[in-house]
Amino acid sequence: MVVELIKLSKTSDQPLYLQLYNQLHEMIKNRQIPADYKLPPIRKLAKKLGINNVTVVNAYKLLESDGLVYSKIGSGTYVTDLENKELFEGNSVLEESSDFEEVKLINQGQIEIGENTINFASATPTPELFPVDDFKNALNEVLDRDKGFAFGYQESQGFYPLRESIATYLSVGTSKIEPEDIQIISGAQQGIDIIAKALLNYGDCLVVESPTYTGAIAAFRSRGAHIIEVPIEQDGIKLDILEDKIKKFRPKFIYCMPNFQNPTGYCYSYAKRKELLKLATKYEVLIVEDDYLTELDYGERELLPLKLLDTNDRVIYIKSFSKIFMPGLRLAFLSVPQELYEGVLAAKHISDISTPGLIQRAFDLYLRKGIWQKQISYMREVYKERYYKMLNAVRQYFPQDIEFIPPEGGLTFWFKLPEGILAQDLYEDCLEKDVLFIPGSVFYPTPRSSQHFRLSFAAIYPEYIEAGIRIITKSINKLLKGKKKNRTKSYTPLL
Amino acid sequence: MVVELIKLSKTSDQPLYLQLYNQLHEMIKNRQIPADYKLPPIRKLAKKLGINNVTVVNAYKLLESDGLVYSKIGSGTYVTDLENKELFEGNSVLEESSDFEEVKLINQGQIEIGENTINFASATPTPELFPVDDFKNALNEVLDRDKGFAFGYQESQGFYPLRESIATYLSVGTSKIEPEDIQIISGAQQGIDIIAKALLNYGDCLVVESPTYTGAIAAFRSRGAHIIEVPIEQDGIKLDILEDKIKKFRPKFIYCMPNFQNPTGYCYSYAKRKELLKLATKYEVLIVEDDYLTELDYGERELLPLKLLDTNDRVIYIKSFSKIFMPGLRLAFLSVPQELYEGVLAAKHISDISTPGLIQRAFDLYLRKGIWQKQISYMREVYKERYYKMLNAVRQYFPQDIEFIPPEGGLTFWFKLPEGILAQDLYEDCLEKDVLFIPGSVFYPTPRSSQHFRLSFAAIYPEYIEAGIRIITKSINKLLKGKKKNRTKSYTPLL
Repeated sequence: MVVELIKLSKTSDQPLYLQLYNQLHEMIKNRQIPADYKLPPIRKLAKKLGINNVTVVNAYKLLESDGLVYSKIGSGTYVTDLENKELFEGNSVLEESSDFEEVKLINQGQIEIGENTINFASATPTPELFPVDDFKNALNEVLDRDKGFAFGYQESQGFYPLRESIATYLSVGTSKIEPEDIQIISGAQQGIDIIAKALLNYGDCLVVESPTYTGAIAAFRSRGAHIIEVPIEQDGIKLDILEDKIKKFRPKFIYCMPNFQNPTGYCYSYAKRKELLKLATKYEVLIVEDDYLTELDYGERELLPLKLLDTNDRVIYIKSFSKIFMPGLRLAFLSVPQELYEGVLAAKHISDISTPGLIQRAFDLYLRKGIWQKQISYMREVYKERYYKMLNAVRQYFPQDIEFIPPEGGLTFWFKLPEGILAQDLYEDCLEKDVLFIPGSVFYPTPRSSQHFRLSFAAIYPEYIEAGIRIITKSINKLLKGKKKNRTKSYTPLL
Repeated sequence: MVVELIKLSKTSDQPLYLQLYNQLHEMIKNRQIPADYKLPPIRKLAKKLGINNVTVVNAYKLLESDGLVYSKIGSGTYVTDLENKELFEGNSVLEESSDFEEVKLINQGQIEIGENTINFASATPTPELFPVDDFKNALNEVLDRDKGFAFGYQESQGFYPLRESIATYLSVGTSKIEPEDIQIISGAQQGIDIIAKALLNYGDCLVVESPTYTGAIAAFRSRGAHIIEVPIEQDGIKLDILEDKIKKFRPKFIYCMPNFQNPTGYCYSYAKRKELLKLATKYEVLIVEDDYLTELDYGERELLPLKLLDTNDRVIYIKSFSKIFMPGLRLAFLSVPQELYEGVLAAKHISDISTPGLIQRAFDLYLRKGIWQKQISYMREVYKERYYKMLNAVRQYFPQDIEFIPPEGGLTFWFKLPEGILAQDLYEDCLEKDVLFIPGSVFYPTPRSSQHFRLSFAAIYPEYIEAGIRIITKSINKLLKGKKKNRTKSYTPLL
């Protein structure tokens, strides 16, 4: 029954295993194949379709990592009962789809994080780093000062004095940001969602760096937009490909992270920043700059947001204050080109009317008193220590053929495994040893296997970093050995 | 040029003036007619199109109330420069579009509300009613108890103890709500937006009561959905029309407010509630129940949410805690049928990851200590007094031919002006006298003129209610006189 419905094309650009995977994925999601249905045995399906056994194996593996099928030893592969499937159960989740990114998984505790888990997945600081007392004082001061007004509706654009403080904080030299340019939002994720609402209609195109932040992918996809991927390399997005894609797809905007890109940690070179802005002006395309880490630089180079180089009002700037400060506050802002004020404000309004006034008022005080600036310096020191622990451990233990570029700042490292080893396998092996990280496949808009993985040191005490890296190293070595074995094995016919 | 593009059909169901209005509206929005372009003179256009002068006048008037055209005395009608138009300028805004509803207008202070303004537009309590001290205590208690954890990411579904408190608060008799059913959200508007994200794709249909809450219209429209209107009457939505529309359009859901509907204040009869649920089950359509006022009943009848009658898991229940409590907190929740858990959670996640944990934790304490329940009783007394002030003043002063049905609770009254008087005219006249309210046209998904208007007593001290009603009465009487004059005038040819 299933076999009849599958149409593979050997002349397509898409590899056969992905074609097969995509079609089965569709059928399972649409319930065309019912729950607990046994999929055709690998050899039988391969024969019927005139393809290699390995192609079927790869397709089934991807489905399994999506949580859409499960295998019974000695019996075969079965379709998961999606109705009764526990939300986010077990390990399969992390791969389930890019709708659910790392922060969610970790912080929802849906993947069990025990006391002994070494968590390289979370890019969120641990609670003891938050300035609880300072913020408590700010809250109380605001309540005594503003009373009930702190609980009334706030204007949708945001509490004016806070917009003023932010504009002052952001302006550098001659690059001035005005309070009128600022739109307060409930965290960077909301910023992305609001921009998607304001700019993307069904069928519109946009460009993202590939890989990129999964929360952005999910928000753009939710608008029914087409996501165009352009690879990112050490010094920024690949400009020649970008220009081609712009010409071909006329995207509404380019979503990028010029400083400490997520997940790669890469920083755009100055030349590429200038070039990117030039392209944006030439083709009248907007740039959405997502920045939550610029302050956390450990290198020599002074890094500034792209926004401050933007003389043609092309950049929408999303800046989270809460991510490395107190993520549970949900506080960020947008700085928006004038022509977009109205649309962005309307999108904010339909999203949640306004960001809680009490939090805005307290954070305003916090900024005005200069406590934020002190807190950032403190955080930079804390993270710099963890960064070097990580860098040293990786250099000491990881095999030579693991590729990576040490980032100049931020909270994450991006590694590439040697040919033939998938990050998903490493992920599963490490999970058993209570070490958690994010496999690279999560960061791509289209499903794919990946040799990359991301390690973050944001939530790990320095003394555990080395221990964690040693465990991961062991797993890698095991997989490297297995790979050699597999290579031998694959000379004999499969199954 | 413009004339050539207009195609009117005398056999269409739509009145000619609306056809003309819709086509011009489209052309102006699309910039087919440029800024500051002079529209054809009324008589000339009427002659060319073979229609009555009055038809053109009515169409132009609607465009003007949308802020899309402006008139120069003695010169003619011109297209507004939409690029340079001040956001929310002046009076035209309230009518500008249903994207911008009352709360926004009022609270953004974009319509100037002076010290002497009598504001019947805002449905938000005044700040002195907020329980500042109690909430401050709760905040401090939480910070001392949870420290940094109060600032970390919260699970996207919401702080578990709060979901527990809410489930307990909500369960009545045998109708049990479980913490697992609850999704914490940042205010009811976000709830609407999240449901729209989770359920509506481009081109999908949904049903709303007509008139309805403008913030909902805007959120649904933003998804590219088709909004089907079904009239509401004193005892609820018109069920025969509803059933027809369900059969014809197969909507994803019916958005409704069974208790104290906004803007009408109407309450569904028990029979209609049962019937509505039956229809939902029969046609497998969901019901989205928006409830923020059920607690504010001043009558005899015990009102319960529709959700508690729902034995077939058809109702998505949106409940705001903050609206009449402390709107600036942005706190509400959804109670969701099991099949929708996952989609709703994903939509919450891409919207803003989670609602601020500190606020969730403080509100949990607030509920557990029973302070919320006390506060609600207090608010009910305060509003009951204002309600009767309003009811008495209206009965004493308003002319007999103003129609209305006294609501059984809530914060608003809904009036109908006599034939031939538009609420927009009354609105403009009252605005000059510093009395503000919301004209009915704002509450419809499709532009129309309206004889209805909404008066809220939420933000007015009792001693000003009578004064306000007297001013409105004067304006009404003036318009009634003018109407008689106009009637005489209209016997002579127009222009």
